[in-house]
Amino acid sequence: MATGRLERVRRRASDASVAALLVTNLSNIRWLTGFSGSAGMLLVTGERAVLTSDGRYRTQAAEQVRSAEVDDVVEVVIGGVVAQREAIAAALGPGQTVGLEADSVSWSDQRRWAEALEHHELVPTQALVETERTVKDTGELARMERAAAIADEALARVVGLLAGAGRGEPVPDGMGGGPLSERRFAAALDNAMRELGSEEPAFETIVASGENSAKPHARPGDRLIMPGDAVVVDFGATFDGYRSDMTRTFSVGGAPTGELARVFDVVLDAQRTGVGAVAPGVVAGRVDEACREVITAAGWGERFEHGTGHGVGLDIHEAPSVGPGSTAILEEGTVATVEPGVYLAGVGGVRIEDTLVVTADGSRPLTNFTKDVAV
Amino acid sequence: MATGRLERVRRRASDASVAALLVTNLSNIRWLTGFSGSAGMLLVTGERAVLTSDGRYRTQAAEQVRSAEVDDVVEVVIGGVVAQREAIAAALGPGQTVGLEADSVSWSDQRRWAEALEHHELVPTQALVETERTVKDTGELARMERAAAIADEALARVVGLLAGAGRGEPVPDGMGGGPLSERRFAAALDNAMRELGSEEPAFETIVASGENSAKPHARPGDRLIMPGDAVVVDFGATFDGYRSDMTRTFSVGGAPTGELARVFDVVLDAQRTGVGAVAPGVVAGRVDEACREVITAAGWGERFEHGTGHGVGLDIHEAPSVGPGSTAILEEGTVATVEPGVYLAGVGGVRIEDTLVVTADGSRPLTNFTKDVAV
Repeated sequence: MATGRLERVRRRASDASVAALLVTNLSNIRWLTGFSGSAGMLLVTGERAVLTSDGRYRTQAAEQVRSAEVDDVVEVVIGGVVAQREAIAAALGPGQTVGLEADSVSWSDQRRWAEALEHHELVPTQALVETERTVKDTGELARMERAAAIADEALARVVGLLAGAGRGEPVPDGMGGGPLSERRFAAALDNAMRELGSEEPAFETIVASGENSAKPHARPGDRLIMPGDAVVVDFGATFDGYRSDMTRTFSVGGAPTGELARVFDVVLDAQRTGVGAVAPGVVAGRVDEACREVITAAGWGERFEHGTGHGVGLDIHEAPSVGPGSTAILEEGTVATVEPGVYLAGVGGVRIEDTLVVTADGSRPLTNFTKDVAV
Repeated sequence: MATGRLERVRRRASDASVAALLVTNLSNIRWLTGFSGSAGMLLVTGERAVLTSDGRYRTQAAEQVRSAEVDDVVEVVIGGVVAQREAIAAALGPGQTVGLEADSVSWSDQRRWAEALEHHELVPTQALVETERTVKDTGELARMERAAAIADEALARVVGLLAGAGRGEPVPDGMGGGPLSERRFAAALDNAMRELGSEEPAFETIVASGENSAKPHARPGDRLIMPGDAVVVDFGATFDGYRSDMTRTFSVGGAPTGELARVFDVVLDAQRTGVGAVAPGVVAGRVDEACREVITAAGWGERFEHGTGHGVGLDIHEAPSVGPGSTAILEEGTVATVEPGVYLAGVGGVRIEDTLVVTADGSRPLTNFTKDVAV
């Protein structure tokens, strides 16, 4: 699965005048070697790749590196933190410049390395590996499609609970009976994803109903879901480390009315327009602009309080950013979200999001749940 | 709730020759101000406390700071990252030495600050706030007791599933029927905690059965729980930000037999001995030693592959460490775990853990679920 990745990162390191790159971001380590443990380091030099971790991961590291089909030999060193640092220092050529991932390494660790590697120059690097990760290969896309399909199916299994709340019905006895709160709906969705093979929620599932729907970052609480509510459901599954991300907003108890109906229309239109702007060679900021123009024309430009989207993969938020002024160029195989929203205090909020892969002539959604809003 | 905390941290900063401390660890910010958002910074000078965050948290930051009853005025500044940095720079006295939390600030951010604060000396600090957090006040203990009680009750609700698996019964229809996997048991436990008011699992719940029980860091998988299995269940609840941590190991289908029976006996004995060693004034390393002596005497010293415990609070792992050579002194009000384990490949593993608060004359467990192992 990981063929060619080390070579691509070596080229980027070389372009950054770095002879050896010390990778400490765990998602970057996983992408380069297959190793998914919670602790470890990876040194990539022109000739070698040395992965270190502790005794908990002795078997796992060896197995994962083998099954990842990395094109080079990845040497695995298991030991305490001191032994790991010594192995990395020993693998460096004399006086080699060493890149540290400045966004993930702590100042403490940088100081430790500066002391341990006093005859080497330490250079801060940014996004060397992350940039290579934005274009997904077929194995990665297969995992992301699986994660997205699990999320679609899980939502299909539980959306009836919202319809039930719209009719004033209690939740089924098998789920404990009683009224449906945001928290219970989130739990039902998380359980359905787990039953369908998701390793963990891609992030903390958001279920925001009624007045809470107007808060883009609400966490699910004890509020009961009522007829007439807008309910924002923003969630994803994880399959073999890869994540999906989708938002649907439902109108509970039938079609929305009044100003809320217009918010639904505008956001759906903005999302469709944003998706239509996605294609290879397009600047990511243009996708944001396309969404924002629709919402601004409707008079709610100020109520679209966040960026339009972000890359997704091993991390739920990764490169490229899809926001105002984003300069990243979309390429075939880039995976990113398009998720405009409008949030009106006293009325409610609507956000609609798909995860898309950029194709030769546009894009293809990985998330496919219906956008019919009435339940 | 937060009375006196800023003053205590000011004293520590002063002892470290730091005129102003920039707090970037989010748990430290929460402990000092009550603010629980996912982004923000806090500058503590001799006279002022300036909390910054972004627009998402405008209402929340103001409300939480007010209800935390911090003894000083905490000024709240809301804005973009640049505006936040400027507000912090403006709050510094001329030439003041600024402490940065070196374990939590990234090298990138340290470099940004070094540039922005070129007329100030930046000093790396470690554990200034964390050390103050080890002794819990009554409000914190009440929250932790509540989290631990939720976890106890949740386990009581679902432990019958293990007994059912021991009799070869499927799980009840209301839960979907079929056999009981590690993953399903973990889901049932997480759901029970959520229903009982836990905000989120204190960490990813561990359910490790049969051969998996011999791996201290196993993640719950599709393995089915069978009669004769040892099942390690390591989990906790979260209440108002505070976490609990408890491990029980069950013998499914009745009392354990053969070597596994002896492992259970030895670990229970070690845990009891470790708990007995906890008292104010005791060096944390001594508690580890007490556990380890029992296990070593049984011939399994090498199979106790981790430290005996750790502090718990807003973070699931915090100071003090309770491991070989730990030099922290336990004080009345310190909360920490005691969790020895023995892991024998081919036989199984057993870990028993309680979260304790140090009292005037010993300790009191916050976690109280029975240690009867047969289900």
